[in-house]
Amino acid sequence: MIDLRSDTVTKPTEAMRKAAYEAEVGDDVYGEDSTVNELEETVADLLGKEAALFVPSGTQGNQIAILTHCSPGNEIILQEDSHIFLYEGAAASIFAGVQTRTMKGERGAICPEELVSAIRKDDIHFPETGLICLENTHNKAGGAVIPIENMMVIAQIAREHHIPIHLDGARLFNAAAASGIGVAKYAQLTDTVQICLSKGLGAPVGSVIAGSKVFIDKARKWRKRLGGGMRQAGILAAPGLVALRDNADRLSEDHDNAKLLADGLAEIDGIEIINRVETNIVLADVQGTGMTADAYVQLLKEQQVLANSFGPHSVRFVTHYDVGKGAIKKALSIAASLTKQPN
Amino acid sequence: MIDLRSDTVTKPTEAMRKAAYEAEVGDDVYGEDSTVNELEETVADLLGKEAALFVPSGTQGNQIAILTHCSPGNEIILQEDSHIFLYEGAAASIFAGVQTRTMKGERGAICPEELVSAIRKDDIHFPETGLICLENTHNKAGGAVIPIENMMVIAQIAREHHIPIHLDGARLFNAAAASGIGVAKYAQLTDTVQICLSKGLGAPVGSVIAGSKVFIDKARKWRKRLGGGMRQAGILAAPGLVALRDNADRLSEDHDNAKLLADGLAEIDGIEIINRVETNIVLADVQGTGMTADAYVQLLKEQQVLANSFGPHSVRFVTHYDVGKGAIKKALSIAASLTKQPN
Amino acid sequence: MIDLRSDTVTKPTEAMRKAAYEAEVGDDVYGEDSTVNELEETVADLLGKEAALFVPSGTQGNQIAILTHCSPGNEIILQEDSHIFLYEGAAASIFAGVQTRTMKGERGAICPEELVSAIRKDDIHFPETGLICLENTHNKAGGAVIPIENMMVIAQIAREHHIPIHLDGARLFNAAAASGIGVAKYAQLTDTVQICLSKGLGAPVGSVIAGSKVFIDKARKWRKRLGGGMRQAGILAAPGLVALRDNADRLSEDHDNAKLLADGLAEIDGIEIINRVETNIVLADVQGTGMTADAYVQLLKEQQVLANSFGPHSVRFVTHYDVGKGAIKKALSIAASLTKQPN
Amino acid sequence: MIDLRSDTVTKPTEAMRKAAYEAEVGDDVYGEDSTVNELEETVADLLGKEAALFVPSGTQGNQIAILTHCSPGNEIILQEDSHIFLYEGAAASIFAGVQTRTMKGERGAICPEELVSAIRKDDIHFPETGLICLENTHNKAGGAVIPIENMMVIAQIAREHHIPIHLDGARLFNAAAASGIGVAKYAQLTDTVQICLSKGLGAPVGSVIAGSKVFIDKARKWRKRLGGGMRQAGILAAPGLVALRDNADRLSEDHDNAKLLADGLAEIDGIEIINRVETNIVLADVQGTGMTADAYVQLLKEQQVLANSFGPHSVRFVTHYDVGKGAIKKALSIAASLTKQPN
Repeated sequence: MIDLRSDTVTKPTEAMRKAAYEAEVGDDVYGEDSTVNELEETVADLLGKEAALFVPSGTQGNQIAILTHCSPGNEIILQEDSHIFLYEGAAASIFAGVQTRTMKGERGAICPEELVSAIRKDDIHFPETGLICLENTHNKAGGAVIPIENMMVIAQIAREHHIPIHLDGARLFNAAAASGIGVAKYAQLTDTVQICLSKGLGAPVGSVIAGSKVFIDKARKWRKRLGGGMRQAGILAAPGLVALRDNADRLSEDHDNAKLLADGLAEIDGIEIINRVETNIVLADVQGTGMTADAYVQLLKEQQVLANSFGPHSVRFVTHYDVGKGAIKKALSIAASLTKQPN
Repeated sequence: MIDLRSDTVTKPTEAMRKAAYEAEVGDDVYGEDSTVNELEETVADLLGKEAALFVPSGTQGNQIAILTHCSPGNEIILQEDSHIFLYEGAAASIFAGVQTRTMKGERGAICPEELVSAIRKDDIHFPETGLICLENTHNKAGGAVIPIENMMVIAQIAREHHIPIHLDGARLFNAAAASGIGVAKYAQLTDTVQICLSKGLGAPVGSVIAGSKVFIDKARKWRKRLGGGMRQAGILAAPGLVALRDNADRLSEDHDNAKLLADGLAEIDGIEIINRVETNIVLADVQGTGMTADAYVQLLKEQQVLANSFGPHSVRFVTHYDVGKGAIKKALSIAASLTKQPN
Repeated sequence: MIDLRSDTVTKPTEAMRKAAYEAEVGDDVYGEDSTVNELEETVADLLGKEAALFVPSGTQGNQIAILTHCSPGNEIILQEDSHIFLYEGAAASIFAGVQTRTMKGERGAICPEELVSAIRKDDIHFPETGLICLENTHNKAGGAVIPIENMMVIAQIAREHHIPIHLDGARLFNAAAASGIGVAKYAQLTDTVQICLSKGLGAPVGSVIAGSKVFIDKARKWRKRLGGGMRQAGILAAPGLVALRDNADRLSEDHDNAKLLADGLAEIDGIEIINRVETNIVLADVQGTGMTADAYVQLLKEQQVLANSFGPHSVRFVTHYDVGKGAIKKALSIAASLTKQPN
Repeated sequence: MIDLRSDTVTKPTEAMRKAAYEAEVGDDVYGEDSTVNELEETVADLLGKEAALFVPSGTQGNQIAILTHCSPGNEIILQEDSHIFLYEGAAASIFAGVQTRTMKGERGAICPEELVSAIRKDDIHFPETGLICLENTHNKAGGAVIPIENMMVIAQIAREHHIPIHLDGARLFNAAAASGIGVAKYAQLTDTVQICLSKGLGAPVGSVIAGSKVFIDKARKWRKRLGGGMRQAGILAAPGLVALRDNADRLSEDHDNAKLLADGLAEIDGIEIINRVETNIVLADVQGTGMTADAYVQLLKEQQVLANSFGPHSVRFVTHYDVGKGAIKKALSIAASLTKQPN
């Protein structure tokens, strides 16, 4: 199987497994798991934040940020294809009682003018704008890197209106690898950041949120309420540390493989690449093959290539360290053979 | 003062006051207020629904509908300038725990294709689409009448996907007066309707929601929880009945006055009418006067004409029975004089 | 019918109806209803608070207080038979996201030692104690007056722990009439108070909450979200003002009638009075008649006397201005005849 | 350090670490982690339920159960010292919008008569009783085993009223070890069960909830919303399987050690054992030493013995597999020496 459904499917490496096996652990609810503490300090340092918190998933990281920043009746501004809006089961409205206000944006980036006009004035009829959420890289926009210039303008607007910014940086290390701009540069433009250890970085489980010390203290209580307080969590934090050490710098390989894949797919009749392929995600429109995305994904699967349907006609391929250049080439030749068959 | 800020400012007529004075009342929490019961039956009949419920405001009527139709984690679909989304303080997300998904639409009408693509599939990441909310006439779109053809298509889509429809009909009687299509025709395309007695109909306080008997039974409990259960509410229901009897048929006068006002304003240098003026709302862009909407509204106020700022450059005028043709003409001559002054 | 089910069934007096008829009104959402403004100022003055807010019901008044004082995840302390805990449909947990912590108490009064031990320390596992709710008089405890000494001790504890107090004073005027202690004396021991105009005071609809100006400003927005913002609400506020003027001082008549009723019932075989009858509520245990409360209430009803079942064997009678001394005597002779019949 | 604060502090055994190292893993959000699947099937079988779900903590397991069983505005019945009520940060009220109704009970067991009288009738003022929560063993009651006879009566009442039961069985294996009654016998009396792998069973992280297939399907979505969906979670499930295999049967050793500890402490002047010590928890009242619980715990800590303050004068000691008989004896001699010192 060549599994290109997501970078979440990455299996832990031998080094990660060994780290889990040897991890020094303690009870993290008491703050005594030294490996978790090391991971939290490491991420805080990497992102230039005062403190950080290990959580079981990116969704929980994002939801904790919303719960900590907002009060019920606030409105949060986010791009209309963002993960928080599309893929977190409306959790922000259920748990934090906030209303979602979506921006059209461009390739995942929020347009500053659209943002300014969406910020609520003080009025008895209006929710208060409580948070701006950004996502970089942007999954649904095909792994698009949100330009730092765009984030700088948004940060300026947010500052003027005293609205905090949360960055869903599930794939922030991909943005850094693609742009050459360090993760801390992005992070300093936002109040809080969530990074995911279990996507391209390859750790088995977990995300980290980072922010001010005051924020993280409050966030810790929300984590407990959401049931994210884990005991000897060092067994997860240890491979997380390996992931940061070993894999942050090799993400550009995944990006190269994504370009290779995109170029190859583009040559196949009936397939059109619809994203710019800046990082590790390739979005292909398969309408020209006469198949729906679901049918095409099924056909690929029968040939041992896995991808995800991402709309009626679009298919998402995600590269990661479990799929090397050779496997990409094999996947391409399978894909090429598939669309010949219908003729 | 010529008060064109809203049709909510209408003062009760002598007939309404008399009705309140003479109303037979009882304890409506026990279901024993005969005047409230009469009002609820009257509205249910008018709208062709099984049952109805008197509530203190349109906002509460809409929120009760959302609470009764939906479960936490549902997503509700509504037009991006709808009252529920813009002006109800994010109540749907706080109280019902639902996520708002907004449609761009056209003149307040949701585009069927956009709707279809927004309905969620069954997936562990997705909220479930739980309700479609329509608004007719549409306030922010300048009192636009949502065409019945549009509502028919949406009703068909909703039926196919087993999604209920709630109609915010705060000004549904204006839609009926303008289109010549009866309120029941609109109502039969939706599961539940909220109509407002205290806008163009002129009652002092109150709205009514209508739907199936099962729906109204559940809605009654939500009304109690929201604190909308009132005791001798007949004192409000009685003028509400007068409003329905006396004022539903005279709304076209307000519409004529709105057209008169719009035509007059259009002739003033620097003022442009930006809505179609189908009912009792006129939206004027005042940018050409060199003034912001706020400044223009202030200037009008100094001359005893009240209107509402409705955006950075747009001003909303609403006609109603407390402002007759003569007052409209006077307001126009004041408006004309204002923009001469700056020269 | 002699209706002793509740003091909520009181019908508006001629003076109240006249006041409604003549009321000066405006749009209260714009703050322009002069009668509402007068009512709010009157109540604020009476209770010694900076500001007040008119709301459609006592339940909404209490819920607004909880929403304004608390954040989600707070715990509120209240007596286990209080109205907020028993009769408001769990609204505090749904809307404000607070956990209810109930105190056993004695005759509706919370025991100070029990209170102190229930206040939460700072701990990641614990909700934060966010509010103490008192109720005076206490409905379920049979209209018991909470002694001012008890409230003083609780106020002292609350102050030491920086926890606000809300007083559900739906029948606070009854407490004042019975104890001779003015409503302001009670109110000054708490941060916020809700008083009900439509119980013993006899107004058709409405309650008022009072507190600091900052509190009321925030409360106003919560009222809007709950759908309690009404337009020409002066039509309700006017009879409310009459209720305060005419009826606060006559509540001791209701108390006398309650004692008369209790004394008479106590002489009937099989009936035992189980509350102290300090105000306008009489609780009778009817087990000795061989009937359940429901059966006894039904039998009374057939003889044109209405009362409420208040537990498996207890029946509640509430006196009010629509039931005079003569009617009480008649009810007593009916009650006496009923229990003779089974012999 | 002899750490008797909690059985959550247990470190993973060599066998558990090895299992984590070797675990077959996959992406559990796609349902492809074979080790997680094996754990879920194992627990479902052990408890006699159709299906099960791995979650990061007992708190999340309990909260998912409440979210899945209940609707907002429900009331849940639980013992007043239960973990869900005391130690989960009011999460049930925040997230599920349910009101907590606490029962006094006896040694953690709910009294059937108290339960019956707390179940709500159908009334517009009342929340609906939506769930009964039990806890076995009961932490705050000193590890008390809830007698199966008590649970049978409660199950009967619940069935008659169509109310589901959730069992917080964080330490259900301790109950089984102490009573000789298998976990499935307890589980069959309830609709859903949560068991904790990371307490006495010693796994590093995780709990499992079990119930019907329909329940678990819904629960899986709530887990996602709460952020408990983890990727290669087999790395945690593998030691969890070892914990069930190796440690369920050795819990009676912990119970013997608890009795040894209790007997020794009871002989120390000023210390009184206040629970029956049926399982692995010892509650000591230290008031007779002249110290508060906090002071006593601090003194023990200076001598390398860790325990938790559990009230103003009570101290909790929890035995587990990282503290053998020898360590217990050493802790006892330290404790004995401490209270000699003050003389």
